[in-house]
Amino acid sequence: MKRFINLFSRRIGTVPGTIIDVPSNGSRPVEMGLFRYNADSVEQRQLAADDSLENLAQENQILWLDIPGVHDSVLLKKVARRFDIHPIAAENIQHTGQRPKADEYEDQLFLLLHMLTWNGEEKTVETEQVSIIAGKGYVISFQEHPGDVFDPVRRRISEGLGRVRRMGADYLSYSLADAVVDNYFLVMEDLQEEFEELEEQVLFEDGPDPSAKVHSLTRELLSLRRAVWPMREAASALMRGQIPAISEEVQIFFRDLYDHIVQIIDWIELMRDSLKGLMDSYQSRVGNSTNAIMRVLTIVATIFIPLTFIVGIYGMNFQRMPELSWPLGYPMVMALMALVALGMLFYFKKKKWL
Amino acid sequence: MKRFINLFSRRIGTVPGTIIDVPSNGSRPVEMGLFRYNADSVEQRQLAADDSLENLAQENQILWLDIPGVHDSVLLKKVARRFDIHPIAAENIQHTGQRPKADEYEDQLFLLLHMLTWNGEEKTVETEQVSIIAGKGYVISFQEHPGDVFDPVRRRISEGLGRVRRMGADYLSYSLADAVVDNYFLVMEDLQEEFEELEEQVLFEDGPDPSAKVHSLTRELLSLRRAVWPMREAASALMRGQIPAISEEVQIFFRDLYDHIVQIIDWIELMRDSLKGLMDSYQSRVGNSTNAIMRVLTIVATIFIPLTFIVGIYGMNFQRMPELSWPLGYPMVMALMALVALGMLFYFKKKKWL
Amino acid sequence: MKRFINLFSRRIGTVPGTIIDVPSNGSRPVEMGLFRYNADSVEQRQLAADDSLENLAQENQILWLDIPGVHDSVLLKKVARRFDIHPIAAENIQHTGQRPKADEYEDQLFLLLHMLTWNGEEKTVETEQVSIIAGKGYVISFQEHPGDVFDPVRRRISEGLGRVRRMGADYLSYSLADAVVDNYFLVMEDLQEEFEELEEQVLFEDGPDPSAKVHSLTRELLSLRRAVWPMREAASALMRGQIPAISEEVQIFFRDLYDHIVQIIDWIELMRDSLKGLMDSYQSRVGNSTNAIMRVLTIVATIFIPLTFIVGIYGMNFQRMPELSWPLGYPMVMALMALVALGMLFYFKKKKWL
Amino acid sequence: MKRFINLFSRRIGTVPGTIIDVPSNGSRPVEMGLFRYNADSVEQRQLAADDSLENLAQENQILWLDIPGVHDSVLLKKVARRFDIHPIAAENIQHTGQRPKADEYEDQLFLLLHMLTWNGEEKTVETEQVSIIAGKGYVISFQEHPGDVFDPVRRRISEGLGRVRRMGADYLSYSLADAVVDNYFLVMEDLQEEFEELEEQVLFEDGPDPSAKVHSLTRELLSLRRAVWPMREAASALMRGQIPAISEEVQIFFRDLYDHIVQIIDWIELMRDSLKGLMDSYQSRVGNSTNAIMRVLTIVATIFIPLTFIVGIYGMNFQRMPELSWPLGYPMVMALMALVALGMLFYFKKKKWL
Amino acid sequence: MKRFINLFSRRIGTVPGTIIDVPSNGSRPVEMGLFRYNADSVEQRQLAADDSLENLAQENQILWLDIPGVHDSVLLKKVARRFDIHPIAAENIQHTGQRPKADEYEDQLFLLLHMLTWNGEEKTVETEQVSIIAGKGYVISFQEHPGDVFDPVRRRISEGLGRVRRMGADYLSYSLADAVVDNYFLVMEDLQEEFEELEEQVLFEDGPDPSAKVHSLTRELLSLRRAVWPMREAASALMRGQIPAISEEVQIFFRDLYDHIVQIIDWIELMRDSLKGLMDSYQSRVGNSTNAIMRVLTIVATIFIPLTFIVGIYGMNFQRMPELSWPLGYPMVMALMALVALGMLFYFKKKKWL
Ligand SMILES: [Mg+2]
Ligand SMILES: [Mg+2]
Ligand SMILES: [Mg+2]
Ligand SMILES: [Mg+2]
Ligand SMILES: [Mg+2]
Ligand SMILES: [Mg+2]
Ligand SMILES: [Mg+2]
Ligand SMILES: [Mg+2]
Ligand SMILES: [Mg+2]
Ligand SMILES: [Mg+2]
Ligand SMILES: [Mg+2]
Ligand SMILES: [Mg+2]
Ligand SMILES: [Mg+2]
Ligand SMILES: [Mg+2]
Ligand SMILES: [Mg+2]
Ligand SMILES: [Mg+2]
Ligand SMILES: [Mg+2]
Ligand SMILES: [Mg+2]
Ligand SMILES: [Mg+2]
Ligand SMILES: [Mg+2]
Ligand SMILES: [Mg+2]
Ligand SMILES: [Mg+2]
Ligand SMILES: [Mg+2]
Ligand SMILES: [Mg+2]
Ligand SMILES: [Mg+2]
Ligand SMILES: [Mg+2]
Ligand SMILES: [Mg+2]
Ligand SMILES: [Mg+2]
Ligand SMILES: [Mg+2]
Ligand SMILES: [Mg+2]
Ligand SMILES: [Mg+2]
Repeated sequence: MKRFINLFSRRIGTVPGTIIDVPSNGSRPVEMGLFRYNADSVEQRQLAADDSLENLAQENQILWLDIPGVHDSVLLKKVARRFDIHPIAAENIQHTGQRPKADEYEDQLFLLLHMLTWNGEEKTVETEQVSIIAGKGYVISFQEHPGDVFDPVRRRISEGLGRVRRMGADYLSYSLADAVVDNYFLVMEDLQEEFEELEEQVLFEDGPDPSAKVHSLTRELLSLRRAVWPMREAASALMRGQIPAISEEVQIFFRDLYDHIVQIIDWIELMRDSLKGLMDSYQSRVGNSTNAIMRVLTIVATIFIPLTFIVGIYGMNFQRMPELSWPLGYPMVMALMALVALGMLFYFKKKKWL
Repeated sequence: MKRFINLFSRRIGTVPGTIIDVPSNGSRPVEMGLFRYNADSVEQRQLAADDSLENLAQENQILWLDIPGVHDSVLLKKVARRFDIHPIAAENIQHTGQRPKADEYEDQLFLLLHMLTWNGEEKTVETEQVSIIAGKGYVISFQEHPGDVFDPVRRRISEGLGRVRRMGADYLSYSLADAVVDNYFLVMEDLQEEFEELEEQVLFEDGPDPSAKVHSLTRELLSLRRAVWPMREAASALMRGQIPAISEEVQIFFRDLYDHIVQIIDWIELMRDSLKGLMDSYQSRVGNSTNAIMRVLTIVATIFIPLTFIVGIYGMNFQRMPELSWPLGYPMVMALMALVALGMLFYFKKKKWL
Repeated sequence: MKRFINLFSRRIGTVPGTIIDVPSNGSRPVEMGLFRYNADSVEQRQLAADDSLENLAQENQILWLDIPGVHDSVLLKKVARRFDIHPIAAENIQHTGQRPKADEYEDQLFLLLHMLTWNGEEKTVETEQVSIIAGKGYVISFQEHPGDVFDPVRRRISEGLGRVRRMGADYLSYSLADAVVDNYFLVMEDLQEEFEELEEQVLFEDGPDPSAKVHSLTRELLSLRRAVWPMREAASALMRGQIPAISEEVQIFFRDLYDHIVQIIDWIELMRDSLKGLMDSYQSRVGNSTNAIMRVLTIVATIFIPLTFIVGIYGMNFQRMPELSWPLGYPMVMALMALVALGMLFYFKKKKWL
Repeated sequence: MKRFINLFSRRIGTVPGTIIDVPSNGSRPVEMGLFRYNADSVEQRQLAADDSLENLAQENQILWLDIPGVHDSVLLKKVARRFDIHPIAAENIQHTGQRPKADEYEDQLFLLLHMLTWNGEEKTVETEQVSIIAGKGYVISFQEHPGDVFDPVRRRISEGLGRVRRMGADYLSYSLADAVVDNYFLVMEDLQEEFEELEEQVLFEDGPDPSAKVHSLTRELLSLRRAVWPMREAASALMRGQIPAISEEVQIFFRDLYDHIVQIIDWIELMRDSLKGLMDSYQSRVGNSTNAIMRVLTIVATIFIPLTFIVGIYGMNFQRMPELSWPLGYPMVMALMALVALGMLFYFKKKKWL
Repeated sequence: MKRFINLFSRRIGTVPGTIIDVPSNGSRPVEMGLFRYNADSVEQRQLAADDSLENLAQENQILWLDIPGVHDSVLLKKVARRFDIHPIAAENIQHTGQRPKADEYEDQLFLLLHMLTWNGEEKTVETEQVSIIAGKGYVISFQEHPGDVFDPVRRRISEGLGRVRRMGADYLSYSLADAVVDNYFLVMEDLQEEFEELEEQVLFEDGPDPSAKVHSLTRELLSLRRAVWPMREAASALMRGQIPAISEEVQIFFRDLYDHIVQIIDWIELMRDSLKGLMDSYQSRVGNSTNAIMRVLTIVATIFIPLTFIVGIYGMNFQRMPELSWPLGYPMVMALMALVALGMLFYFKKKKWL
């Protein structure tokens, strides 16, 4: 939840729908990736932040501009002006930490996604906002840092695999979203592994209190859920033709994406329910164990405490205690105590404590 | 939840909507079952994976091709080409572990179901994906392994029972879905039996902690639920005429199917609620039992610990302890202790601990 | 939940939408009740299972045929043929244990209800399926056994009370459904009585663990709910004119029925919530009681265990223990112990344990 | 929940939609309140149950007839006949304990409300059903007993305050409903006070188990909720123009009423959630307290029980126990025991039990 | 929840839709803030409560009148008359503590918001109602006290930043709502900090029972939620063009506002879920700790209580106890006791209690 904190304080009071000027002192320069392709040809190269953006888009070609960094406000402004990005969309692009969504601005599709990765060391799910602007003949993708899950898409474009080269900007947008969602399954697999370890430990092993682990796994699931739930709504809008930028042919692909998102959601909910059940099982085991411990204590104590009292009696130093001089005093007391102990044992047997 | 794990990693990065080439080294060859029938005649035979698929469908006949295996990617591709199956549907067929659904592709109905069976030994519900493609005059069913719940349908076709021979491909699709859903009731009966045993044990017997069993039964219910819930939506679409491939006459049958699915869902929810209640009852019994144990310990200890103290006093070896030489010292102490004990018992009686 | 079990296994594999032939060996013959009436006249008589069903319906008269038994498959088939009952409806009639619903088949209304009775001895709610087929000029009701809640309706018809004689088959259907729903209130009253007894016991009495009782009452409520919830949907369809067989005049009556069903549902939910709260209160009482018991034990033990240690010291037999020969040794030890005890008591007082 | 019980048994089997004849032996006669007003004039008087109802309504005047009693079935029938009240509405008026609702019967509005009052002594919310029939130029209100919350409305009419005198029967209906809902806030304030006392007690005081109080407050809230929830739906229908008897001008007032009802509902839900949290806090405090008690017991017992064993050893009477005759035997044992005790204390310190 | 209490009692019985006359004895005079601007010019000044309101609005200019106090009923009436505010809206403005909402009155937009601030000392969220009336060319904002979150908006108007000067009253309304919502993030950040401190404490530290703190944080979250939830609905209506006063261009800005509100809601729900999980973890830790304590007690007691009994035997003073005179009596008893102790330890080892 940390990210909300960092992002917000800086923006309070700014004009809604603006790109804030951020001093660029020493921060990494953004190098853009460019693809230009159609069914017959493909061109791939890198673009520096201060390269011109004019004449990039060509008739009969699809342009994909990938911008792996949103901290360069000068570049952001240039791109926004060149591609006529709505100020609100531009603010959402710069101001990461937004809720995933699919919006429509005149003839542009604006897709905001969370790219997730599992940090195996800190056992947390890490998030990176990916924003996609798709217009007629071009797609622009914005990321927070270099490094993403789009390599399979890049390979398909450059090697001409599948149908991506024969189709439009809407299909490319879908391909990027699909790559993001495919990756969710990998994250879920890692969480599932964590869960199963925990399950084993809680149900069958005697270890330390697992509640902190359950708590942290639950928290990761909750934050995952926050990323995935809104995407359902977005994908649903895309598959139902509510956004004109998506052709009917590509709607079927978004329907498939929708299915995958719902599958992820089902999985998340299943794991959350199971985690709740796990805590219940643990509570039950702890309660049972307290019970068993108390039973041992009670049995031992209730047998020996009265016996100790009895031997205490004959340890008193009164001058006149006739039993002490009876020849059979000692064995009789021992027998009495054996009787008491047996009675107790019988009682515990009847109570099924033994 | 295992199946998600196995299935996904392999596919990351592949073209969306493709049949992946799987090397067939030594895997079982797929033998297809073929039915061709109308009201007057019926033909049933087996087809090898490399038999030709041309000229199978005939005017005035219904063709049912059952393919019990999706690992033969060559066969899958051949079938997909021959029957014009949409790439996304084809991917769903090969890539099992999908969410149940009813989709429409141009003039084809695509039905994805989970066939469930109860594994009595491991006490788990096992799932097999069944995909059904129904077009004008033909139905193709895909399974993961040979062996299914369709024998009653086969018998009805070959013996001409019921209305299946007089009706179209939509009714055959319904019959297959109906056979799958009928089987859910058998699975539920087995789970019900498990549940009732557990209920007996939790409410009336003193046994080991049942929480692991409750946890595992809950998990099976949750996974069952994940299979059945989406079918509700699918059946609802089919019964309301939202999918043109279903004639009005057959919609009534899908309404019946819908009723059965809702009945299963009700049953699942009822059992889940009951399992939750069962855990509560168990917690309550454990708490009560701890209570009872503590009460015994407390009664015994609070009676005898003070008495032991008293006898300890007169076990001290001080030279000047006048009571020790009193002729009635011993009986007086004994009487005092009896008084103390009686007072305690009275107190416990008043507290209703006895 | 038993009924699901019994009913299903028998049907797996049968043709969907059929009446199964059941051998009638020795089972009770079904005697049908017949009413034929209009505003001016009324005729009431019994019909044997093998009586002819032709010429029963008359112009300008309402026919009510009540069939208290669905085990006679020959009769069922005859009735289904005579009144053109859809095979799916017929299957639902014979195959009891269905979910309540209101369906429409061409010009027939098919109403499936659960008639409930409270079995005071076994403390369970018993269910009997009532199916009603209403067409133009006739109503046929099917029950599982003789004996029902329709006597007030019969009396109103034969004595001409209310508006039933002046109205159509739709109003008669309503009257039967209304009689069934009226009876739910009686069942709820009995459950309410059970609940209030339990409440008294849990909150104010010290008795045995009530969790099994709470569990069983909850289970009865859950099964009641399963019967009533679907009726809400059904009544809603009937009151909104979604089913043409219901005239606008009678819709207002179904709106009243709907209100009653919602009232029952509210009552059920209220009782379920209260039962949950009751368990919480009980847990709280048990926890408190454990607490109080522990407090007594702790007070007694922490006072006397150290004192016993002290007297133990002076019970040792060392030859050189100077205190033993001090003239004031005994009273000094006694005073010391009194001090220790008082200190403890003061400490417990401060901790509010006393 | 009592009221369901009393009301129902009497009605089973009666004709739906009828006023039941109730013998009037000795019951209080109903005295009706009448208002007749327009912008210019107002007339207020009392009417006996057997006064004629003809010629009451006048052109250009609004008539408000308030009937504070529904036990006089003769009067009810007279009123129903005179104002053409639908039998179902009439039954709902007589048969109190209905769910709140807004229904429409031809050109009449039928409004059923629950008037609530807080009984400070029994700490319960008491309910009285108010039914309102509003037609063109007249409003008839039915209550269970004399005494209501309508005095502010009466004063506004007789003194000509606000807009009531200038507006129609729909505005008068609104005013009555508004007076009823205003009173809910007073009831909520009283419940809030109860809640805050309980909160104080549970969180900061050591008193008796509050679970019975929490349970009873929850029950009152649940029954309040049952009264208010259905009114939301009713007000929503009235504010959206779904009922033609409400003019567009008055719809805005019903929108305000709707807001107030939603506010009450929010408040109820907030208090319920808080009560749940309160029980959790209490459980937590009890668990903690058990813990603290056990800790004291464990510390004292684990320190002194071993020491008592040691002194017990040297209290044995064996003839050959060399330590007993050692000159430093006694101080050495005392030192040993001090060491053991210090070790224990150190261990507890490390475990943070001290 | 206090505020409901204070506000309501005073109003019971008043005419719905009125400004109540409040005596102004000694209360602070309200000084209004005025802005008049268009793209070219801007005028900012203060207005006293008794200044004339005529001729304020000018053709081609936007008027913003900010009224930081609703206790001056004379002023409220003057403003309401001058700007034709609907009586129901006026009542909502004066009578603070309303549910947030967006209503439409003829050609006016009525926006009711809660401005929230975090009181770090009392750790509570404080609420101030802000009501906004927006008509053609003017916006009037009402607050409870001077001091607000609108300074960034004021600066943007006076310095001509952003688009506010070029746009209409609808955009100004949006800007005010946006400033209110931006501030919610700051409040959430503070609550988040509280939450994380608590989390740390509950999961990893041994401190006092955190349940009162959890309870109070939950309560703040619940009251926050009550403020934010209704705004979702309001923003949704504004962004979908359901209110004609909002131009299509400004709807996009309200869509952004909607996104922010949903983000806040997600955050609140996430924190509530986490708080629930935290309590569970705490319960689990307490249970575990009780367990560990009991284990120590049980081990010590079950080892030493039997041993103490044995030494007690040989502390008895019977004349005939042959073991006492055996030369090896003492070492044999000591060895026996060592054996018993070792046996116990072995048993505990096997039980994994050690
Ligand atoms: Mg801003
Ligand atoms: Mg990041
Ligand atoms: Mg990146
Ligand atoms: Mg994919
Ligand atoms: Mg992995
Ligand atoms: Mg897919
Ligand atoms: Mg893929
Ligand atoms: Mg399988
Ligand atoms: Mg198979
Ligand atoms: Mg079936
Ligand atoms: Mg079986
Ligand atoms: Mg059926
Ligand atoms: Mg069947
Ligand atoms: Mg039966
Ligand atoms: Mg019967
Ligand atoms: Mg009724
Ligand atoms: Mg009864
Ligand atoms: Mg009614
Ligand atoms: Mg009746
Ligand atoms: Mg009453
Ligand atoms: Mg009254
Ligand atoms: Mg009001
Ligand atoms: Mg009060
Ligand atoms: Mg209001
Ligand atoms: Mg008022
Ligand atoms: Mg509203
Ligand atoms: Mg305030
Ligand atoms: Mg202010
Ligand atoms: Mg903002
Ligand atoms: Mg801060
Ligand atoms: Mg935004």
